Amino acid sequence: MTTVPATTPPETTTPSPADAARPGHAAPSGTVRGATPWTATGVTRPDDQELARLDAWWRAANYLSVGQIYLLGNPLLREPLTRDHVKPRLLGHWGTTPGLTFLYAHLNRAISARRQPTLYLTGPGHGGPGLVASAYLDGTYSETYSDITQDTEGVKRLFRQFSFPGGIPSHVAPETPGSIHEGGELGYALSHAYGAVFDNPDLMVAAVVGDGEAETGPLATSWHSNKFVNPAHDGVVLPILHLNGYKIANPTVLARIGQDELGALLTGYGHKPYFFEVPDDSDEPPLVTHRRFAGLLDEVLDDIAAIKERAAAGDDTRPAWPMIVFRTPKGWTGPAEIDGKKTTGSWRAHQVPLANARDTEEHLRVLERWLRSYRPEELFDDDGAVRSEIADLAPPGELRMSATPYANGGVLLRDLRLPDFRDWAVDVPAPGGSTAEATRVLGQWLTEVIRHNPDNFRIFGPDEVASNRLQAVYDVTDKQWDAELYGPEVDEHLARAGRVMEMLSEHQCQGWLEGYLLTGRHGLLTSYEAFIHIVDSMFNQHAKWLKVTNHIPWRRPIASLNYLLSSHVWRQDHNGFSHQDPGFIDHVVNKKAEIVRVYLPPDANTLLSTYDHCLRGRQYVNVVVAGKQPTPNWLPMDQAIEHCTRGLGIWEWAGTEVPGTKPDVVLAAAGDVPTLEVLAAADILRNELPDLKVRVINVVDLMRLQDSTEHPHGLTHAEFDGLFTDDRPIIFAYHGYPWLIHRLTYRRTGHGNLHVRGYKEEGTTTTPFDMVMLNDLDRYHLVIDVIDRVPSLGSSQAGLRQRMQDARLRARAWTREHGEDLPEVRDWVWPGAGAAAELPATADTGGDNE
Amino acid sequence: MTTVPATTPPETTTPSPADAARPGHAAPSGTVRGATPWTATGVTRPDDQELARLDAWWRAANYLSVGQIYLLGNPLLREPLTRDHVKPRLLGHWGTTPGLTFLYAHLNRAISARRQPTLYLTGPGHGGPGLVASAYLDGTYSETYSDITQDTEGVKRLFRQFSFPGGIPSHVAPETPGSIHEGGELGYALSHAYGAVFDNPDLMVAAVVGDGEAETGPLATSWHSNKFVNPAHDGVVLPILHLNGYKIANPTVLARIGQDELGALLTGYGHKPYFFEVPDDSDEPPLVTHRRFAGLLDEVLDDIAAIKERAAAGDDTRPAWPMIVFRTPKGWTGPAEIDGKKTTGSWRAHQVPLANARDTEEHLRVLERWLRSYRPEELFDDDGAVRSEIADLAPPGELRMSATPYANGGVLLRDLRLPDFRDWAVDVPAPGGSTAEATRVLGQWLTEVIRHNPDNFRIFGPDEVASNRLQAVYDVTDKQWDAELYGPEVDEHLARAGRVMEMLSEHQCQGWLEGYLLTGRHGLLTSYEAFIHIVDSMFNQHAKWLKVTNHIPWRRPIASLNYLLSSHVWRQDHNGFSHQDPGFIDHVVNKKAEIVRVYLPPDANTLLSTYDHCLRGRQYVNVVVAGKQPTPNWLPMDQAIEHCTRGLGIWEWAGTEVPGTKPDVVLAAAGDVPTLEVLAAADILRNELPDLKVRVINVVDLMRLQDSTEHPHGLTHAEFDGLFTDDRPIIFAYHGYPWLIHRLTYRRTGHGNLHVRGYKEEGTTTTPFDMVMLNDLDRYHLVIDVIDRVPSLGSSQAGLRQRMQDARLRARAWTREHGEDLPEVRDWVWPGAGAAAELPATADTGGDNE
Repeated sequence: MTTVPATTPPETTTPSPADAARPGHAAPSGTVRGATPWTATGVTRPDDQELARLDAWWRAANYLSVGQIYLLGNPLLREPLTRDHVKPRLLGHWGTTPGLTFLYAHLNRAISARRQPTLYLTGPGHGGPGLVASAYLDGTYSETYSDITQDTEGVKRLFRQFSFPGGIPSHVAPETPGSIHEGGELGYALSHAYGAVFDNPDLMVAAVVGDGEAETGPLATSWHSNKFVNPAHDGVVLPILHLNGYKIANPTVLARIGQDELGALLTGYGHKPYFFEVPDDSDEPPLVTHRRFAGLLDEVLDDIAAIKERAAAGDDTRPAWPMIVFRTPKGWTGPAEIDGKKTTGSWRAHQVPLANARDTEEHLRVLERWLRSYRPEELFDDDGAVRSEIADLAPPGELRMSATPYANGGVLLRDLRLPDFRDWAVDVPAPGGSTAEATRVLGQWLTEVIRHNPDNFRIFGPDEVASNRLQAVYDVTDKQWDAELYGPEVDEHLARAGRVMEMLSEHQCQGWLEGYLLTGRHGLLTSYEAFIHIVDSMFNQHAKWLKVTNHIPWRRPIASLNYLLSSHVWRQDHNGFSHQDPGFIDHVVNKKAEIVRVYLPPDANTLLSTYDHCLRGRQYVNVVVAGKQPTPNWLPMDQAIEHCTRGLGIWEWAGTEVPGTKPDVVLAAAGDVPTLEVLAAADILRNELPDLKVRVINVVDLMRLQDSTEHPHGLTHAEFDGLFTDDRPIIFAYHGYPWLIHRLTYRRTGHGNLHVRGYKEEGTTTTPFDMVMLNDLDRYHLVIDVIDRVPSLGSSQAGLRQRMQDARLRARAWTREHGEDLPEVRDWVWPGAGAAAELPATADTGGDNE
Repeated sequence: MTTVPATTPPETTTPSPADAARPGHAAPSGTVRGATPWTATGVTRPDDQELARLDAWWRAANYLSVGQIYLLGNPLLREPLTRDHVKPRLLGHWGTTPGLTFLYAHLNRAISARRQPTLYLTGPGHGGPGLVASAYLDGTYSETYSDITQDTEGVKRLFRQFSFPGGIPSHVAPETPGSIHEGGELGYALSHAYGAVFDNPDLMVAAVVGDGEAETGPLATSWHSNKFVNPAHDGVVLPILHLNGYKIANPTVLARIGQDELGALLTGYGHKPYFFEVPDDSDEPPLVTHRRFAGLLDEVLDDIAAIKERAAAGDDTRPAWPMIVFRTPKGWTGPAEIDGKKTTGSWRAHQVPLANARDTEEHLRVLERWLRSYRPEELFDDDGAVRSEIADLAPPGELRMSATPYANGGVLLRDLRLPDFRDWAVDVPAPGGSTAEATRVLGQWLTEVIRHNPDNFRIFGPDEVASNRLQAVYDVTDKQWDAELYGPEVDEHLARAGRVMEMLSEHQCQGWLEGYLLTGRHGLLTSYEAFIHIVDSMFNQHAKWLKVTNHIPWRRPIASLNYLLSSHVWRQDHNGFSHQDPGFIDHVVNKKAEIVRVYLPPDANTLLSTYDHCLRGRQYVNVVVAGKQPTPNWLPMDQAIEHCTRGLGIWEWAGTEVPGTKPDVVLAAAGDVPTLEVLAAADILRNELPDLKVRVINVVDLMRLQDSTEHPHGLTHAEFDGLFTDDRPIIFAYHGYPWLIHRLTYRRTGHGNLHVRGYKEEGTTTTPFDMVMLNDLDRYHLVIDVIDRVPSLGSSQAGLRQRMQDARLRARAWTREHGEDLPEVRDWVWPGAGAAAELPATADTGGDNE
């Protein structure tokens, strides 16, 4: 048994600086000791002895899997099985497990022969016991969890902990060494796999796709990932479609369309399918089965090696990548029938086939016969350790799939080399004294981020990188595309390798990014705000993964998952109601406070400062919402940094406070459009009610609003009261659904004085200002809110109130007549902003594209 | 121009009662007047004159489309185009439009020839102008919107309203006659199309799939819908892959994999692809192009007719359904180049190709030449009406795709025949005096719902109908499956036709159900609670559709979309943390109060009553969360009905109030597990603190908590205070994230006294009671909460408090040791429940399967 701990930092080769013409062409290599990737020469076919050893390994893995599901005691069956040896609650999944262990065994052999760094990624995550058993046989499990020893007591503990209170989940999970892929929600095996191989040219990911999972949408489109992988500069995904035929209670679609149709489908996906089949009623001797599969796997790996060789020689045409269709019985090697019903080879083997194993003597004997069919006496020595000739099937050290550093990405993670974002600051001679498209400015800085980090940073987007105005990055890189190219007339910035990954699938982009981050790199996903809900559930799973890994010491921190949401709810002039949804923030804040950060920078400099912070982070999900339309710049860079560092603050220049006295009213804003409207309202108030003491607060870091006991970024109650007061009306203009602000602040002293304006699902096809009017978030309505809520105003200001109402009617009528916003609204600038603040005439043309 | 209004109720044929052996085999027919579906005989090929007329129709549709995007005035170009005629803000999408109008024109011809009821469903929803133009040419638009007349002024209004403040969206939208499919979020064209044809054997849906949309996950898997459609009893989907090659800023994957690979893919999806191509640089005369396509479409429709004929004769093998690959230039017929850059046939034609049409004289002339290229002078008469020989291409009456009653499902909707759910009541001799698996009881009632409604009610689920314990329905129906059948040994309840639709894709299930509802039928979707987040975004779009249609008088109400979420957050003993997420409720309540309902019935009888209510509803989204594990029954049916009718109420039998006095504390619960724990806590309190006046409240209808001004179901403040008091501590045990209860109640007087216990993302692999303990929602902790919050208790009850802490430690230790819950916890029954309440010994075995 090798003793290299799984967490040893690997021997990494420092990548050479990007001397290739454009980033995307350089990549690190040699992250696994002793690797000789893509070797095809000198690989010999296994003899019978080796196949027998492989079969013993497989039997051991299956025995250990069944044991995990059923046994509390008598782990090695050294006495007759009794009811008390069986767990009282039988939980787990058997059906997919023997297929997964079979593949693991054969991959082990191939890896040993070829010294090929390999990550094993199993979509049918319910095969948890099989992966845990394999890691135990590799030795990794005992190295990682020292109480799970390689002896009888260790086997007993291994069994007991499985799906047991205080133990491990029944799925592949963060606790499982060698995994980057939670086995809970289905659909992301291939997108995670491709994310892992981008910029890892030496890595092979053997990605098992369950035929149940294959029915999900995200999986169905992820086959097309092979048009986005570069055969020279990226690694290789070997998809293995595990066609075991059944889900929980139904057959699977791909198992029931015939081999011709399935073959056409996989060919159509761009693959060269290799079919392997073991029928339900097969009586083929195991060694023959093993020989058949070992031969097929060698053929596939030789094929891949040839592709890599051609690619290294400069052939950049897209190959038909090999894949395996692995058609084997569900619950293979389990009881053929239970209670007279076909079990192996049916959906009845999906979960716990003998759910009532303790109930009758007959069932108990079925279980015992099943366990003994693996011949445990041949597999374990007297002490209960796996016999060394079996354990030795595992490749050495980090070549073990359960010990690969690729599956503990934090080990491989290198800090980004971040250029000083202050060099990209926009000039702000006075508040509102210039305008910028915030995301376009960010794009200019990202250009340099890409230049400095040519092999470990990528941008992912569903056809929206340019639409979200990050197109400056194409000055230094391209969109990676391995499908047909038609030439520069139509294919701008499209190339065989590049740092930008675009496919019209939020699922795909998110899955790729997750795989990229989990294997130790950095990146961001830019999307329209409304449609990021498409990946709500993927976000959930990633946040849960991060939360769990925070408490697993051997898992090293990985880079944060960064969202850049633009084309946001307030600027859907093109697209209207269907494109308006700011609720991703609400969704995100349900997850653990230790994981989640939400930022709403109001202008270009604050966006730069925010994103620099996000790209430095570890183990967070950062949600950044920022506009792409021309917007006034409010803060010069030094103030922007200070503001972002605080997360929120009073903008003294915008208010009319008298030092040493409490304000009469607090106007707060979070988000770029709300900030603009709050400032315009403050401008009206300073002209109309010069004696009113108005405090203006801007919030960048939304989590600051929460109680410090609820979120690490939260303000204490004293801090909050100092800013927002404990008794003055607070009019809060918020980017999203108003509820959220109440939810974040309901414990605050002054919460009863808080009035929030936000999005109310009242959108339609209209102009930007009319849109904010529809939701009562506009400057005029905010002034009305102040009049209605400051006791000293009220009826005395009925005239001003009426003028505000009139202004709204005028603005709406103008909009309906001219199709544009009222010039006095559109051209408003903050007093003193000067001529520099002139908004470009085209500012409102364009809206959001899709 | 025909004058049949689009909203005339169609001549429906009353379906015969289900005299077929099992429901699923009967279906209504003849919903469109004068239809002769699937006619192939007597259809003649079009002559040149007809093709010329068709071409004129197409030019008219394209002219009207370009006009909508660009023109404010001079609608028929009867004077030279000036800057003032052009809209100041140019919004909309041109790229896909001419392809969509071409297909519409040809379908019109075919429908006229065959009298084939057809729904036109366009995935590339950005082609909004094309669909509006087509409906205008059909006459439907003017019938529906009487101010959009068939004259010059009408054309002007048609143009002005498009993507203009107060006008219509740029997408296909609820406002568009003939549509059931919002053109906002992409991915659901095929699942909606298949949902529409289930049980509509006469209906053809021509479903255009955009090649951008084709990259999304939901669309990629929805091709497999053809394994779930019955050729005899359902209608036919004709997929048309609109391969125009580009998205916003990128080529599309399917346009760049070569025809062989694409052909293999589509064959693999189970289709027989017919390829039609017009290259970018084609100089083919239009009539030749039209003749080619008309011939191809006739061939395709003849092929479909033959399949329908074979199916009617009893052939139930799955056919290779025809589909069309429609490869035409993006922005076809638009300017070839703009500013020297290739426009037609590139992504530059995606949106508004001449975004600066007003800026220069040159651009203005490009626009004018483009518009005049359609020869408007040949298309409109002196009054500005479309010439009759062109308009007559439209089929008659309801055969017009823009006037089909299938696209206004409420017109076709028949009430469900609902059996009296009280007949399925479980016997509750005393509170907690019996146990049941709530969803299993519901399943028994649904069995009769299916029996009584054999052709307009379906259950959809991602392989979870049986797992969620609705399997009683298989007594009367089957799962519909048109892929290979292996026989009853493994294929239980699988048949060529049936009321249950199962595929392992929440997207597919939701899309099918939406299509089914939008065409006037009823149904429900059952899913695991955590994974319903997968369709967050689809829910958003459906809720927005309902919200908009509520304000469109010609749209008739459709049946509510009903969710049954089981396998919920508190019972994931198998699956652990990855399967725990109660946040769909939070997501849902962001949408308009007029649309959204959330129910948490605590037991079987309340679930029956709730679901009866849901199946009677119109225009709502009903979210029902209910457990599938054995749980005590609390209310006999008469009380259950009363409780559900109120939505929430005091359970006097559970509390220890003294009539006429205020309670000392309120214990409230929403959800089955919280209800159990609250009652167990109330039991402890009545024993330990017999003088404490405890009020127990149960909440079924979550929206009752909200302010009556915020939600139509909301309690007034007086009502709320009467129930929850305005000054007593409220300990609220809630099924989901505790925030939501604060959010719903923050305006209530007593909100400061409210303490909520709920799910905190603190799950792990454990037993049911340990799970509630992890989140401090358990009976012992609720008692501690009471001690800590009732001023008269506090330090005087330190002893009881300590005993509660000890009980928790004991329960946890037992769990860790035995893998089961402490017997005193597991076997607890409400006092007086009697022997009947004995929980079955297997109650905790099994957990949630997946």
